[in-house]
Amino acid sequence: MSNKKKVVCKVRLKDGVLDPQGVTIRHALEQLGFTDVVDVRSGKVFELTFREGVNGDLRAKTEEICRKVLANPVIEEFEVKEE
Amino acid sequence: MSNKKKVVCKVRLKDGVLDPQGVTIRHALEQLGFTDVVDVRSGKVFELTFREGVNGDLRAKTEEICRKVLANPVIEEFEVKEE
Repeated sequence: MSNKKKVVCKVRLKDGVLDPQGVTIRHALEQLGFTDVVDVRSGKVFELTFREGVNGDLRAKTEEICRKVLANPVIEEFEVKEE
Repeated sequence: MSNKKKVVCKVRLKDGVLDPQGVTIRHALEQLGFTDVVDVRSGKVFELTFREGVNGDLRAKTEEICRKVLANPVIEEFEVKEE
């Protein structure tokens, strides 16, 4: 069994930031008869695999990666979860 | 307080399906000094809000939406979570 550690990072638009993809999906769902859905927000998810025997705080490392690379802190927020 | 229910749907590429976005991000991280990351897989996440007083099994409804609209079952798999 591998000892590689996985960390999942969910990036989504902040509340109040317009999400055209989400709006489009909601309209599509309405057209298809899924009228119970009143809002759709879209986002991205990244699954990072760290090498075996990695040292240090993986959550902190991943948060740094999110801030610097994966998310745009002006309009997006992120959430990190170790698996 | 609102009684609207949120369901989150995570869509990711199946194992074995090439993920060029993930590969590009991994290379970028390597260049930036994050050499502990050996693999990156990217995916999408959708947050569905259902209207108040909706009836029925929201998980089943969302799974149907994923199968029919949000995911491509040939190359993607999805995971539904009620919040």
